[in-house]
Amino acid sequence: MAPPVRALVFDAYGTLFDPFAVKTRAEELFPGNGAALSQLWRAKQLEYSWLRTLMGRYENFWKITEDALLFSCRALQLPDGEVERQQLMQVYLSLPAFPEVKPALEKLSAVPLSILSNGTPQMLDAVVAANGMTHFFQNIFSVDSVDFYKPRLEVYQQAVDGLGLPKESIGFVSSNFWDVAGATNFGFQTIWLNRNSAVPDELGVTPKAVTNSLRHLALLLRVAEMQ
Amino acid sequence: MAPPVRALVFDAYGTLFDPFAVKTRAEELFPGNGAALSQLWRAKQLEYSWLRTLMGRYENFWKITEDALLFSCRALQLPDGEVERQQLMQVYLSLPAFPEVKPALEKLSAVPLSILSNGTPQMLDAVVAANGMTHFFQNIFSVDSVDFYKPRLEVYQQAVDGLGLPKESIGFVSSNFWDVAGATNFGFQTIWLNRNSAVPDELGVTPKAVTNSLRHLALLLRVAEMQ
Repeated sequence: MAPPVRALVFDAYGTLFDPFAVKTRAEELFPGNGAALSQLWRAKQLEYSWLRTLMGRYENFWKITEDALLFSCRALQLPDGEVERQQLMQVYLSLPAFPEVKPALEKLSAVPLSILSNGTPQMLDAVVAANGMTHFFQNIFSVDSVDFYKPRLEVYQQAVDGLGLPKESIGFVSSNFWDVAGATNFGFQTIWLNRNSAVPDELGVTPKAVTNSLRHLALLLRVAEMQ
Repeated sequence: MAPPVRALVFDAYGTLFDPFAVKTRAEELFPGNGAALSQLWRAKQLEYSWLRTLMGRYENFWKITEDALLFSCRALQLPDGEVERQQLMQVYLSLPAFPEVKPALEKLSAVPLSILSNGTPQMLDAVVAANGMTHFFQNIFSVDSVDFYKPRLEVYQQAVDGLGLPKESIGFVSSNFWDVAGATNFGFQTIWLNRNSAVPDELGVTPKAVTNSLRHLALLLRVAEMQ
């Protein structure tokens, strides 16, 4: 029987907030290139987080998000627009929550909720406030206090230290399979939020549970506690 | 003035040998999907090398290359063919050298040449032998002896230890910008082999030199020694 989940920790980008919401703004600024730009930007943002951690050259998530956008504009041969890039960066501060997020979090009042994200504290505070969700979260943990990005063990350890709970009693939710893999590898009870029926990566790690919507999370937790 | 280059170390896949050569075989096995499969396979192979290093879950390059292929076939919804996957893996053992590689290496007799690659010793020995290039290389260094993938510092350190030379006097050549970034970050004299006019990644690192072909490497080294 698994120990009861005494706290829930959520990834932010892609899990609570939709980073592909930048696609609309990107399409307005660079007509015909919105989809390609938003996809390449997101891919490079993650790639830079991994490579900089491996090289021991940490820069915060705002900086690498700017760098990934600059690279993506150049790679797609878009006009080099400093103003347009700054406008796209601002969108990051007010990404909308996925539609089911707020109603789902309201039902999870039995356990404290936190965020554990690659974002800087400023980025996370801004996007949480923009969505009127500040009151939901006991803690907002940022990798910026450990200078490593996910999926390094030190990142997940931060939530253990901050919550004062053993890792086995912390439930971790992410839509990013590689992040769920990292959290499973660390020892959290993990739930993969697979909204788009993605294929799981072959990383030798299986999350404890899979769901296609945060709507089912309260139920999933009750089932897990009975196992 | 930079210290003279006393040894040259080459990346293997993408630099000496062409991994996209699998595209032809992939197209034969999965008609209409050759390009998509070979690109996704390569991207996931690198992603898994970074993520497994970050998670502390090293598996060798043969295993993660198989895993990346399995994921890619599933993600592209190709028929689940164990036989076809094994045939594609075999292609990796005899990837062709890029056309200019052998003539260029023959002109570099003034300094010892080595390989430093993510590949396993078996994979590297096979592809080097298949191209009749065994006699070119003094050392073939594999990440498999350090259990980390590039761009961790420990990987590049291996060449320093093996060659018994200070890192500043080792020239490192790779077509993969992120690998050149890692080698520059480590302290090698680096040359980015940019065959396809790619845009450099924004990782805060600039390689010492850039060339579009290994043909110019002998000349480039002489120019570098005069600087």
